[in-house]
Amino acid sequence: MMERFKKGDLRALSRFITLAENKDPSVPSLLQALYAQTGKAHVVGITGAPGAGKSTLTDKFIHRLRKEKRTVGVVAVDPVSPFTGGALLGDRIRLVDHFNDPGVFIRSLSTRGKLGGLSLATREVVHLLDAFGHEFVLVETVGVGQSEVDVREIADVTVVVLVPEWGDGIQTIKSGILEIGDIFVVNKSDREGADRLVNELKASLQIEGRAQVPILATSIHDVPSLDVLFSTIQGFLTSSGELIARRRAQRARETVSELLLDLVTSEARNWVAANMKDAKNPYSFIQDFRKLHPEGSLFRK
Amino acid sequence: MMERFKKGDLRALSRFITLAENKDPSVPSLLQALYAQTGKAHVVGITGAPGAGKSTLTDKFIHRLRKEKRTVGVVAVDPVSPFTGGALLGDRIRLVDHFNDPGVFIRSLSTRGKLGGLSLATREVVHLLDAFGHEFVLVETVGVGQSEVDVREIADVTVVVLVPEWGDGIQTIKSGILEIGDIFVVNKSDREGADRLVNELKASLQIEGRAQVPILATSIHDVPSLDVLFSTIQGFLTSSGELIARRRAQRARETVSELLLDLVTSEARNWVAANMKDAKNPYSFIQDFRKLHPEGSLFRK
Repeated sequence: MMERFKKGDLRALSRFITLAENKDPSVPSLLQALYAQTGKAHVVGITGAPGAGKSTLTDKFIHRLRKEKRTVGVVAVDPVSPFTGGALLGDRIRLVDHFNDPGVFIRSLSTRGKLGGLSLATREVVHLLDAFGHEFVLVETVGVGQSEVDVREIADVTVVVLVPEWGDGIQTIKSGILEIGDIFVVNKSDREGADRLVNELKASLQIEGRAQVPILATSIHDVPSLDVLFSTIQGFLTSSGELIARRRAQRARETVSELLLDLVTSEARNWVAANMKDAKNPYSFIQDFRKLHPEGSLFRK
Repeated sequence: MMERFKKGDLRALSRFITLAENKDPSVPSLLQALYAQTGKAHVVGITGAPGAGKSTLTDKFIHRLRKEKRTVGVVAVDPVSPFTGGALLGDRIRLVDHFNDPGVFIRSLSTRGKLGGLSLATREVVHLLDAFGHEFVLVETVGVGQSEVDVREIADVTVVVLVPEWGDGIQTIKSGILEIGDIFVVNKSDREGADRLVNELKASLQIEGRAQVPILATSIHDVPSLDVLFSTIQGFLTSSGELIARRRAQRARETVSELLLDLVTSEARNWVAANMKDAKNPYSFIQDFRKLHPEGSLFRK
């Protein structure tokens, strides 16, 4: 299977991604074996509220990259509740456009009711797409900081997509978003309030000492505005070599660390399931555990 | 501090909740010491999409319970991204109504950029509010299954709040929601599509073999509809003794298990931080770890 993966067999890639999704025990050694092949892909994170037009922008970006004969892998991450699942479904359908293009590989990841693990799976899939030889890897997610998937920790460049309506009345929370973006996009800029949001972002970024960060107004109906956006992304990738190298090294360490925590947690979960008994006070189990394993004693030096 | 907590000092309660939020090492023994005081509160989970009116319904329910002289603790959980923070802020403001009523205690929990731990903190706060003597504990959250906080695992009764608009075109995902609710609410029932959604829910629940589950249409402008809702909740709580006893026992075990996983993870995190070194292939760290700690060897039998 590894040979077929290295030869560019898409079924092998699909198979490896499924192993990562299923937390197969073979995954760590798989990633280790493929590590030498990684580090070539440009990883672009695209994040923003549901309905901001992330999927449409992603779709247009794929078209542009394909015109330049670049290969593209896409990970769409959905850590949403079933309540907001409707929007998701509508969004994803658009990406079917690229279904018959072997230069584009698209995979959706969602928690499907399972708690945790989405962040690790996303990292692993990015690793696999990179190792497979995709020149661009796009990570599309609503997740920022407070969600399971922190796109900043995964991407070389992070694009934050906002819409004019978003600007109304949430000044106090904006600081959480200002730190995230390497590029800010006010999408659906033909709507009322777009200029105001651009100006507010400009002022806020200036206060944060990030006046140099690009803020772009885009609209799907305004092709030149999209060209500017994509050129800005590509410009960031080619001109920020040192920053990106630092981010990539950090990313590899973080992924390894998450992988290890995942192994440990799963072992702990099995142990708890095997050893927890009904007690008059279930919290005494913690005390018993601490007697067996005093703080700091679990791992060998 | 424990004495003051037991005497009903709200500042002591606040202090203990802050310890839980900050993952203070004293928390497990605190919960253990208070365990005998718990098990008396009715825990009501209120969940649904942002904008469904959960906070308003919660507010009205608090008013009703206060009229009956019942004490109420409220945990509002916000595992949302900063992008959707706007609605949250608007919603929360309403709860300020009860600010000067010592019979109502309200606490918001949010991840504030930190990954994980919200589910455990919510469980701990419910435990503390219960031990403090609140007769009702309301847990309001958008989280269901795929999010960090699974309200089903925390509440005695779970109320799922939907709005008519929600019914449009997402049939395929509904099954994820059908299993959750003990009571379904179609709120804002003066809007178009309310009857249709009620009928769809009825049909879907029937297919799932849950035809007996109440489906209520409510509107904030229709006081009797709210009375019916609150009576239905209270009716469920008084008539489902066995089911609730089972849920509570399960809840205590789950909380202990989460607490223990949290302790283990934090120890693993420290160990990784101290031992991970820059390697040519960072993934070799996993292999090295597995040599030190073969699978199944981490925890004592």
